Amino acid sequence: MMDKPLAISMGEPAGVGPDLILQIYARRAELKLPPFCVFGHAEFLKSRAAKLELDIEIGSVDPAASLATFVDAMPVIDIDGLVPDHPGKTSMAAAGAVIASIEQAVTATLTGACRALVTAPIHKGALYHAGFSHPGHTEFLAELCARGGKAPLPVMMLAHGGLRAVPVTIHVPIKDVPGLLSRQLIVDTVRVVAHDLKQRFGIAEPRIAVAGLNPHAGEGGAIGREDLEIVAPAVQDLQLAGIDAVGPLPADTLFYPLYWERYDAVVAMYHDQALIPIKTVAFEDAVNVTLGLPIVRTSPDHGTAFDLAGTGKASPKSFIAAIRLADAMTRGQD
Amino acid sequence: MMDKPLAISMGEPAGVGPDLILQIYARRAELKLPPFCVFGHAEFLKSRAAKLELDIEIGSVDPAASLATFVDAMPVIDIDGLVPDHPGKTSMAAAGAVIASIEQAVTATLTGACRALVTAPIHKGALYHAGFSHPGHTEFLAELCARGGKAPLPVMMLAHGGLRAVPVTIHVPIKDVPGLLSRQLIVDTVRVVAHDLKQRFGIAEPRIAVAGLNPHAGEGGAIGREDLEIVAPAVQDLQLAGIDAVGPLPADTLFYPLYWERYDAVVAMYHDQALIPIKTVAFEDAVNVTLGLPIVRTSPDHGTAFDLAGTGKASPKSFIAAIRLADAMTRGQD
Repeated sequence: MMDKPLAISMGEPAGVGPDLILQIYARRAELKLPPFCVFGHAEFLKSRAAKLELDIEIGSVDPAASLATFVDAMPVIDIDGLVPDHPGKTSMAAAGAVIASIEQAVTATLTGACRALVTAPIHKGALYHAGFSHPGHTEFLAELCARGGKAPLPVMMLAHGGLRAVPVTIHVPIKDVPGLLSRQLIVDTVRVVAHDLKQRFGIAEPRIAVAGLNPHAGEGGAIGREDLEIVAPAVQDLQLAGIDAVGPLPADTLFYPLYWERYDAVVAMYHDQALIPIKTVAFEDAVNVTLGLPIVRTSPDHGTAFDLAGTGKASPKSFIAAIRLADAMTRGQD
Repeated sequence: MMDKPLAISMGEPAGVGPDLILQIYARRAELKLPPFCVFGHAEFLKSRAAKLELDIEIGSVDPAASLATFVDAMPVIDIDGLVPDHPGKTSMAAAGAVIASIEQAVTATLTGACRALVTAPIHKGALYHAGFSHPGHTEFLAELCARGGKAPLPVMMLAHGGLRAVPVTIHVPIKDVPGLLSRQLIVDTVRVVAHDLKQRFGIAEPRIAVAGLNPHAGEGGAIGREDLEIVAPAVQDLQLAGIDAVGPLPADTLFYPLYWERYDAVVAMYHDQALIPIKTVAFEDAVNVTLGLPIVRTSPDHGTAFDLAGTGKASPKSFIAAIRLADAMTRGQD
């Protein structure tokens, strides 16, 4: 697999994704980056590179030719369609190309033409008009990976070095979190985390901390029953299945380095419980990793940042970290 | 006021509170601490000091004599009652003395005999048997401060240098948070924060960030309605009242230093949303400050830690920070 490029999907054309891809390619030697190819629109990318005054070549190729091309030109798997270059102004006209870019990048990774997928941020609003009907980028990827069969449970992990946080529920209102949590969902999520830490991160016996839902992990039932009735039984199920999980643990003290360093991942019950600590310590270079898929997928931990598109001022740190992590996660593969 | 001592309540005798008070007194010169007097039980404290092998004198005095005594002996306002010295083993026999220690320390601070109150952690379980009927330490203090009248709204703030976080709801289950939040409660809480930042922290025009309840502050209604219908109107009310409040802001990016440094305090909607970030960056030396009371009250941000009581191994950092902050908050007073 080491002789395959990473696949990068170009994401929302009006956002900072294309800027960062171009800027990072321009620094490929200095950053010692592994070869990648971009599923995108070559003319659009040339236009954006000119706006950013980047002195780089862009070559339309197929994945197999990417490794040789990468030294001299950014390899682009050219997607048909119209992609206007208007930084900050999203265009419904480009929606088809954005979706096709993701579809083709997934196919190339599933078939082994590329070894892992790094996705640039999309803007869902623009895609809904083109018939995109998935709750988010990640669910779309899970469905593409299913190839028409039952989609796997995609699990979102935010990673920054050894600090890895996984929310069991994600983009849902706080009021819906207690009802959505179930013993089975926690067990399924932690199983995916344990499996992928072994398979993708090379951790032989992953240690997993499970945060409680309520303050102080419910204080023995004094502050809510869910930690006793849902989280604790899930942890017991996992332990019986041979997984080194502990919990429910109070979330507020879990992210002090002295504590989280004891674990290979922390599984939290909801979005902010996982994302607040990781963004507090690693705002600009955390990586979003999707576990549970048959392919490795990472992405930068930021959105389209329309206000910065075309300016060259967006920080490339998280995107670089996403490329490095996708590389590291597939280095051990055959 | 600068010629008055700080009042320290001794807290749960079986916990680390007494250890820390004694250890900190022993280091008073090195740490350049302001004079304080301890509302506690002199014989018990002498016994604990012997266990910890601390070479200090303990003197039974009244608050007025504390300043002169402090140089040579730890001034103790002696509370009647029996306080057995069994580290780690809480005793119902001591409950009356623990409660009296708090009551007398509050009275001394309210009457101006002491200039601020620093409380050591209590164990509510032990106190319930003695008729303690308050949800927590802070609510008890609010009631004592009311002197039989209507208790003020006590507001909990966790502070670490310029990072100050306030939860609007505290020790309640997550499922109850959306129902407990109201426009009025948010307004009342932020008003207390703004008032006390001016009066107690000397910040002329406090800037206050208000976090959203839901992920991404509700994403314009896509992830829950509360941020649109409760939080945003509360922020508007506050702005109309001349308070420099902004929000609802996404909680996950709010605690990155680049962001929170723009604000004098962050008001969060629930316990973990406020406590996760502050404990992540300042586990051992955050201070718990109660705003909204007629007196200044601080406390260390940890519990009784029964397993460490009598060992001398508990970290004194948070307790020292609590003393320093109570001192700083009352330095400007007449």
